[in-house]
Amino acid sequence: MSTGLSRKLAAESLGTAVLLAVVIGSGVMGERLAAGNTAIALLGNTLATGAALVVLIWIFGPISGAHFNPAVTLIAALRRDLSPVTALAYIAVQIGGAVLGVWVAHAMFGEPILQMSTKLRSGGAQAFSEVVATSGLIGTILGVSRFRPDSTPMAVGLYITSAYWFTASTSFANPAVTLARSLSDTFAGIAPASAPAFILAQVVGALLAAGVFGWLLKTERTA
Amino acid sequence: MSTGLSRKLAAESLGTAVLLAVVIGSGVMGERLAAGNTAIALLGNTLATGAALVVLIWIFGPISGAHFNPAVTLIAALRRDLSPVTALAYIAVQIGGAVLGVWVAHAMFGEPILQMSTKLRSGGAQAFSEVVATSGLIGTILGVSRFRPDSTPMAVGLYITSAYWFTASTSFANPAVTLARSLSDTFAGIAPASAPAFILAQVVGALLAAGVFGWLLKTERTA
Amino acid sequence: MSTGLSRKLAAESLGTAVLLAVVIGSGVMGERLAAGNTAIALLGNTLATGAALVVLIWIFGPISGAHFNPAVTLIAALRRDLSPVTALAYIAVQIGGAVLGVWVAHAMFGEPILQMSTKLRSGGAQAFSEVVATSGLIGTILGVSRFRPDSTPMAVGLYITSAYWFTASTSFANPAVTLARSLSDTFAGIAPASAPAFILAQVVGALLAAGVFGWLLKTERTA
Amino acid sequence: MSTGLSRKLAAESLGTAVLLAVVIGSGVMGERLAAGNTAIALLGNTLATGAALVVLIWIFGPISGAHFNPAVTLIAALRRDLSPVTALAYIAVQIGGAVLGVWVAHAMFGEPILQMSTKLRSGGAQAFSEVVATSGLIGTILGVSRFRPDSTPMAVGLYITSAYWFTASTSFANPAVTLARSLSDTFAGIAPASAPAFILAQVVGALLAAGVFGWLLKTERTA
Repeated sequence: MSTGLSRKLAAESLGTAVLLAVVIGSGVMGERLAAGNTAIALLGNTLATGAALVVLIWIFGPISGAHFNPAVTLIAALRRDLSPVTALAYIAVQIGGAVLGVWVAHAMFGEPILQMSTKLRSGGAQAFSEVVATSGLIGTILGVSRFRPDSTPMAVGLYITSAYWFTASTSFANPAVTLARSLSDTFAGIAPASAPAFILAQVVGALLAAGVFGWLLKTERTA
Repeated sequence: MSTGLSRKLAAESLGTAVLLAVVIGSGVMGERLAAGNTAIALLGNTLATGAALVVLIWIFGPISGAHFNPAVTLIAALRRDLSPVTALAYIAVQIGGAVLGVWVAHAMFGEPILQMSTKLRSGGAQAFSEVVATSGLIGTILGVSRFRPDSTPMAVGLYITSAYWFTASTSFANPAVTLARSLSDTFAGIAPASAPAFILAQVVGALLAAGVFGWLLKTERTA
Repeated sequence: MSTGLSRKLAAESLGTAVLLAVVIGSGVMGERLAAGNTAIALLGNTLATGAALVVLIWIFGPISGAHFNPAVTLIAALRRDLSPVTALAYIAVQIGGAVLGVWVAHAMFGEPILQMSTKLRSGGAQAFSEVVATSGLIGTILGVSRFRPDSTPMAVGLYITSAYWFTASTSFANPAVTLARSLSDTFAGIAPASAPAFILAQVVGALLAAGVFGWLLKTERTA
Repeated sequence: MSTGLSRKLAAESLGTAVLLAVVIGSGVMGERLAAGNTAIALLGNTLATGAALVVLIWIFGPISGAHFNPAVTLIAALRRDLSPVTALAYIAVQIGGAVLGVWVAHAMFGEPILQMSTKLRSGGAQAFSEVVATSGLIGTILGVSRFRPDSTPMAVGLYITSAYWFTASTSFANPAVTLARSLSDTFAGIAPASAPAFILAQVVGALLAAGVFGWLLKTERTA
């Protein structure tokens, strides 16, 4: 393994770990303080996640591209920005980092480290929400990086800020995040039984957006 | 129809659809979670809409101008930035996209797809609010794009963030949005009977701002 | 009066009017919706005011400098960026615009147009808060415009967002705003009897900041 | 002492004072208004602190580097960006400014000036939170200033916005802030008995991040 690749994998792993620590940690904070008002808990969760994403992409973008998300890595590989082997390595360390991040959040809040979520998030509406959420995320990345690449980190943070509220699933939009959140029986958790449909929907949404935006953005180049 | 125009219309349609999915979806989320505290629901609705607008204009601005709003298209046509035929096509697909976005939001939240709002928003104060809201939106677009065009997407997002709170109507400021929101009996809905006065007020506000800012900004060029 | 000056005065007047419509309007919205939780009302009021300030300074900054505030105009005149006569004209139209903005907000919310606030905001702690709030505002403008002028509009919006929360007076920091808010018996109002101490404190704070930052920033030039 | 250094120390002292006035002041405001809902108080506290940090770093960054934090100064000294003597002077005035800022906040809110916190924040989870919080802050500064230096002020503000929510300690991440907050028996206070563990954890976190990011960022230069 080249030195460059090891640094890229460290960046993907560390960045995804912090992202999960933020998602889980701010969820616990909101749940503990909000006195039962879930909307206020979600406001804090949203603010923390959106802000952290911008910072993480600013930090790690120049090193690894700051995917933190197997769906993003999949699209990058399909667009040949990444070799298949590198893509698989990215996805492996994203999942590893994500799980580590959940455990860090549990440790910070004095929760048992090892947990399993019991929060069911099932049904067609939830799955459809994940299709929409992930296609929006991929569309944001492809669209903004095409014309205003410097604004992509801010765009991803703002998109997720919005998507936590406008999708019924609160926008997981990330298979590594989905797997890791099944290991936390807190505000942001998801029961393992609900995870496969989420991940399938995320892949469908990502492919859908890659198709639509491939057409929409290519035309601009040639028309 | 040229290839360029079909991509522009796709951009206007898709962008307006996402905008409406955000407005309606985050409204339902807020209403369901906020335990009757409407101010908290409006906070979530505001955050989601303002953030999404910035991202949508970053994505679609370079393709179609990112109007998503017949009032904006009307002013662009009057300023000869757009031909009358193109303007009519823009408005048609904006309305179509807006309706589609409402239905997507309903599907995500497991609501009946076809609805009709029963929320009356009538009276002179509401109409006057829409005059103010729309003139502010047009003033923001004309003023910021004149001196700091790169900041226009952020300016529109921040303006709507503010206008959701400082106008009594929560700032629809968009005839396509108004029509589409009449098809949702949720937080962000508007009874069909209240829509015509809103749309008339929006057109008045847009023309007013175009006049005032035409004068204010032209002087700067020549003085 | 030159054409250029009349446009500057129109910009100061219109910008201050919108600022007050935002402050008063979002205060009423918060008060009506927040079900007695003043912190939530203040969150909405803060979000709306901070966002609007950024947009207003982006729009009107290139025309008039976007003071919207007699304390800012006073410091500009003392630093000879503005003639005394122009400064007096700025202050006059700022006050006129501010009053108009209050009335626009009342009209939007179906409130009686003419009101007088009964909300006492008196005592040394409130006055001291206004010294701090205004010196912070002037320090923000002088400091950021010295090294990063393009960021000044965003800095002013972020500063006021913060100052609404960290000062006991919720940071009026503006004599025209103070006078105009005495004409609204709503969330953001101030009893006329409390206004003179606020305005005196604002002038003291502005002069204090001009002195401190004059020294701090001049040294950087020569050291 | 050179003129340049005296201005740097004034900047560090004044900036840290304002930071503490914001942290304590917005905490009191939140606590008084939020009617017992701590999550809403923390939202206001977060918004005010994050926004102020961006502005303060924009203002004072070009003068002193805008550390406002002995942990940041320590890392800068270890990286030889600062001489040991200057670093000690920075830390001394940061602490002095921080204490002054707490007293200013107390004066603004009509609280007794001299207080001692009784709020225990002890245990391993709290200390671990401070390790995470401070390593994240140092990682943000080192990572963003390496590739996007102009975005560092915004990055620090966004990071703290996030860290107030995702760490169990609400992210003090600053020894001067920790000492000063022990002098306030309000929302943001910390009992003096809990301060040493916090400060130790902050130093550990800072050193950890300096090591990790030294490796991660150096590689990018040479690979």
